[in-house]
Amino acid sequence: MSLKKLLIATGNQGKYKEFKEIIKIFTPFSDSRELEIIFAPDLADLLIEETGKTYSENAMLKAQAWAKESGLPCLADDSGLEVEALDGAPGIFSARVVPGNDKDKISWLLSELKDKENRRARFAASLALCVPDEFILISQGFCSGTIAHSPKGSNGFGYDPLFIPEGFEKTFAELPSDIKNKISHRTNALKKIASFIL
Amino acid sequence: MSLKKLLIATGNQGKYKEFKEIIKIFTPFSDSRELEIIFAPDLADLLIEETGKTYSENAMLKAQAWAKESGLPCLADDSGLEVEALDGAPGIFSARVVPGNDKDKISWLLSELKDKENRRARFAASLALCVPDEFILISQGFCSGTIAHSPKGSNGFGYDPLFIPEGFEKTFAELPSDIKNKISHRTNALKKIASFIL
Repeated sequence: MSLKKLLIATGNQGKYKEFKEIIKIFTPFSDSRELEIIFAPDLADLLIEETGKTYSENAMLKAQAWAKESGLPCLADDSGLEVEALDGAPGIFSARVVPGNDKDKISWLLSELKDKENRRARFAASLALCVPDEFILISQGFCSGTIAHSPKGSNGFGYDPLFIPEGFEKTFAELPSDIKNKISHRTNALKKIASFIL
Repeated sequence: MSLKKLLIATGNQGKYKEFKEIIKIFTPFSDSRELEIIFAPDLADLLIEETGKTYSENAMLKAQAWAKESGLPCLADDSGLEVEALDGAPGIFSARVVPGNDKDKISWLLSELKDKENRRARFAASLALCVPDEFILISQGFCSGTIAHSPKGSNGFGYDPLFIPEGFEKTFAELPSDIKNKISHRTNALKKIASFIL
């Protein structure tokens, strides 16, 4: 399988760029390989209700909806932060555990962990690639780490300013994107399916 | 990708045999290829609630649950009959549209179509292959045909005695299994992913 076009199912330009970088890691000889990676923010009105019980279901629903609308192969993701001391919460509710923006979520998490010694957590991501009338391919990736005591850094999004990946001293939001994109949950998920699609 | 073992996620021996035959179509040189196709009816207690809104979601949930339990690559399916004059019903509810056995379902369908001239219908199937810790691969296949005015034949299961596939005069339940398995919705779904797994 060798795709010519791939639409990233997101209206978020930051996420689109992150995927573009990750995909580049798996296509080092991209000069000789014409894969057009497409951003179509006007399709982002396609607000898919994330009704699945798992990341994989949500990613699949999103990829299918975008593929149906565009007729193109679509890559969608759903991800979350799973905190050990909170029994895996916020998990699939990471993006909507409290109303408000990323700052509100970060305050919520710090307050939940106020008295907790165990700061272990992992990011989980499911990717779904839907090739219309052919197949859907889904994989999951993880990145383990710990939750910092205060937010640091301004790269990335979501809980990145609180998440220190294993083997590092800095948060995802402090690390340069090329480092994050070598070890992230999304990268680890794409690794498992890259040979099928690229 | 070349699997060594594949567990068919079903407690139904008839369905297991059907999959074994279909997979053989795509592995004509199976003597030189050791793929062990496994039936584990004792795992069938794993009754997965089919809560998905699509065949694909249901197949995925089933494949994931069986793979988790067995640690093996698992192939699951979900399928249904979509009748044009009934706006696509019974669809994902095909197996539980009325209480009772296959005969009750057949009576129900004949009575629903009593005054209908349009007898066109199609079988739809989604297959999900879950390779633990790796990926899930999902594909969909169809088989178009018409609904007979009375049940005929004793092969197969479900609505087979009423379904006459396009290009044939006999129902799925009258046709020998090797013919059904060349044209069926399950075969057409497997065709799309066979090259990935066999």
